[in-house]
Amino acid sequence: MNKKMVLSTLGKIIWVEAALLLLPLIVCLIYRNDSVYSFLITIAVAVVIAFPLTFFCKTENKLIYSKEGFVIVSLAWIIMSVIGCLPFVISGEIPSFIDAFFETVSGITTTGASILKDVEALSEGIAFWRSFTHWIGGMGVLVFVMALSTGLPDRSIHIMRAEMPGPIVDKLVPKARETAKILYLIYIGMTLAEIIILALCKMPLFEAVVHTFGTAGTGGFGVKADSIAGYSPLIQWVITVFMFLFGINFNLYYLLLLKRVKSVLKSSELWVYAGVGIVSCVAITFNIMGMYDSFSDALRASAFQISSIMTTTGYATADFNLWPGFSKTLLLVLMLMGACAGSTAGGLKVSRVIILIKGMRRELTRLLHPRSVKTLKLEGKRIDEQTLSSTASYLTVYAASLVVIFLLLSFDKFDIETNISAAVACFNNIGPGLGVVGPVGNYADYSVFSKIVLSAAMLLGRLEIFPLLLCFSLGTWTKK
Amino acid sequence: MNKKMVLSTLGKIIWVEAALLLLPLIVCLIYRNDSVYSFLITIAVAVVIAFPLTFFCKTENKLIYSKEGFVIVSLAWIIMSVIGCLPFVISGEIPSFIDAFFETVSGITTTGASILKDVEALSEGIAFWRSFTHWIGGMGVLVFVMALSTGLPDRSIHIMRAEMPGPIVDKLVPKARETAKILYLIYIGMTLAEIIILALCKMPLFEAVVHTFGTAGTGGFGVKADSIAGYSPLIQWVITVFMFLFGINFNLYYLLLLKRVKSVLKSSELWVYAGVGIVSCVAITFNIMGMYDSFSDALRASAFQISSIMTTTGYATADFNLWPGFSKTLLLVLMLMGACAGSTAGGLKVSRVIILIKGMRRELTRLLHPRSVKTLKLEGKRIDEQTLSSTASYLTVYAASLVVIFLLLSFDKFDIETNISAAVACFNNIGPGLGVVGPVGNYADYSVFSKIVLSAAMLLGRLEIFPLLLCFSLGTWTKK
Repeated sequence: MNKKMVLSTLGKIIWVEAALLLLPLIVCLIYRNDSVYSFLITIAVAVVIAFPLTFFCKTENKLIYSKEGFVIVSLAWIIMSVIGCLPFVISGEIPSFIDAFFETVSGITTTGASILKDVEALSEGIAFWRSFTHWIGGMGVLVFVMALSTGLPDRSIHIMRAEMPGPIVDKLVPKARETAKILYLIYIGMTLAEIIILALCKMPLFEAVVHTFGTAGTGGFGVKADSIAGYSPLIQWVITVFMFLFGINFNLYYLLLLKRVKSVLKSSELWVYAGVGIVSCVAITFNIMGMYDSFSDALRASAFQISSIMTTTGYATADFNLWPGFSKTLLLVLMLMGACAGSTAGGLKVSRVIILIKGMRRELTRLLHPRSVKTLKLEGKRIDEQTLSSTASYLTVYAASLVVIFLLLSFDKFDIETNISAAVACFNNIGPGLGVVGPVGNYADYSVFSKIVLSAAMLLGRLEIFPLLLCFSLGTWTKK
Repeated sequence: MNKKMVLSTLGKIIWVEAALLLLPLIVCLIYRNDSVYSFLITIAVAVVIAFPLTFFCKTENKLIYSKEGFVIVSLAWIIMSVIGCLPFVISGEIPSFIDAFFETVSGITTTGASILKDVEALSEGIAFWRSFTHWIGGMGVLVFVMALSTGLPDRSIHIMRAEMPGPIVDKLVPKARETAKILYLIYIGMTLAEIIILALCKMPLFEAVVHTFGTAGTGGFGVKADSIAGYSPLIQWVITVFMFLFGINFNLYYLLLLKRVKSVLKSSELWVYAGVGIVSCVAITFNIMGMYDSFSDALRASAFQISSIMTTTGYATADFNLWPGFSKTLLLVLMLMGACAGSTAGGLKVSRVIILIKGMRRELTRLLHPRSVKTLKLEGKRIDEQTLSSTASYLTVYAASLVVIFLLLSFDKFDIETNISAAVACFNNIGPGLGVVGPVGNYADYSVFSKIVLSAAMLLGRLEIFPLLLCFSLGTWTKK
């Protein structure tokens, strides 16, 4: 373990977080919030921690392996959350540390699960920071650091691989740093586009910015008690479309920039993602039509909720807890799948589902024709046996994690529907679940123990389990 | 497709069913039940169908492949269920055909889910047949036919493989027929032992026989409204132990007969099975202690319910629907795992869980040390890559099936807790679930559509999905 390299990279990340905290600080100054001091203190704390790490842990040996990659990513996300929750605690707007930690983890993992009973009581600065964590966490903290800095470890693709969602991480261009830069430029471009369009649709600028952060990171934190329900139908449609767009693999946008439209249209992940979305949308529209005044109202509610759930954003314009059983169940199932790999969304990812189904079909063929040899392809490329078996292992560890989280939550006082949907909603970084934690509810009444479990679930889900598991397994820290 | 061989084998199975129907007929005569005619008519129907199949479909070409194996097994189970439900309908004791079909599928797949609101109203003959289907389905109908007959297809191991539960089917002795014989002798021996012990514990003989069928097949049909709750603690313990015993891989009993005790004790599946059972039993005992008068009452209730759920039997001595959330959740999780491969139990099977966990651990190692090569072992034997990938595919298809069943049930009027537990309880051949379908409830109020879905779920679960999927997939029936 190249400990010096790990520590100095962590130091760099804390510097970046300190810099990012300047933005909510400015917001505080604009709105003359009292919470300005909480950001100043937090930045000071960050600097005090970051300084020795970068100063004393300088090393010439910049070589890291996948082991270091997993450790850096895991620790970075935990440290970012601990520092990031300080403004909430210091300002007194979320007085309990564990609540603030839960809220920050929820923000940075782009989950959007909240313990707040009254979100409208937050000051502008704090509300901005809360939503900004979504934006930071969406594309990945370390990818951001990579895009900026030059003094990073060699082979930093290991870091990227540990942080980026999906079964296969492609480098768009040979250098990982350049890839990170391209991804962030697309991300920033789309973010600006959404802010401008929302503002043109007459959403107040502050709210447009905050909701765009929530959409871009597929997070779901807002500033209104009724989430997006109070806005005009036009705004709701704009957010529906942008949620869907942020759920698409960002590599495809790069291909679009290169004008390779044909390659984009060949993406089977995109077709499956859009297909499942449209079919579910039609099914739910007809299922809920009786509850709405007009077809267009039902369609809008259905499209919004599906786009929100599939991309694991978690914004709501309707309380789907009150919808018929079929719609509720379909949403719960869509929660499991999530959106495309290489997007900011959580869940199992569409491409993993495709790989698993292809593996299953091959198994069926093999049972009928034991000697048949069949190569599987995805996006025109051969899926090698290792990817196939890794994906299968991922399903095992995914299912096992869900079972363990569900089991640990059962010590709390809620019913099975609430617990199972809380486990799924946090682990897949969605946010709202069903029952007590439904779109109009919150996670406030879970015990401290359950909140820790759910925080861990959100981190596990965002980092796709393995990095955290490896970081905290003994084998990583013992010498061979 | 060797259609003649398929049809003539199916004919043989119907002959066997006609013969098996003589037993409830005798019970009817002893108890002077009116339902005697329903059995006579059913036997006549069976003979009328079986005769032309065996007579006109004689063939010299006895060669079958795995394809034929899957088709024979799937169709055999469906036909057995259709014929087997006739006595219920004709006697008028379950007047609706779909209800009777559900009950018979539930019996033969050893599920034990019931649509009966008053089980004590059944006549002895019908009650006997209902429980006897458990015993028949437990070890497998075709294994039974194999044990008896000589005119079976060559390579009948394909049939055995399709019908026997578990990831790897071992032949105990070189010939499949001999293996089937040994398995059935052990099965009959253990059945007789339980009947005798229950009778010695002062359970009336008829009830001892019926409950033994339910235990041996890990089914769960009984003759009392309160299942086993009304019997003495001693009887409850005897059934607890026998349920556990019938959940163990029958190969181990064969090894015991050969006095190879050491090999038995080396079985990791046995240790994991017993370990999970004991740990869960302790956990639940402490969790429910407040609800019981004494420690021994709580321990007995906990041990009975765990043994019943893990082995997917479904007998009950307590309404675990009323237990605290943790105990309910733990039982739901145990439902998923099931008992050992090669036993009469349903579920995912302990050995599959072990293989999946080993695959997952290997993946973790590979992430840390990309060049490491590690061979996985189970019961001292190497797990080859194909078994590993088949098991992983099995998990995919298992999870996908559960999701589909759950989704289809959502059209009905029940809550998510009821639906999810009904899906798990039927698919894993357990029987009672939670909520409306809990131990004191039943499946009567589900719609006809849901009952068909659940019947399909039970068959899918018992035959471990692939045979049925393949039987009804186009590829099986088109020539290459």
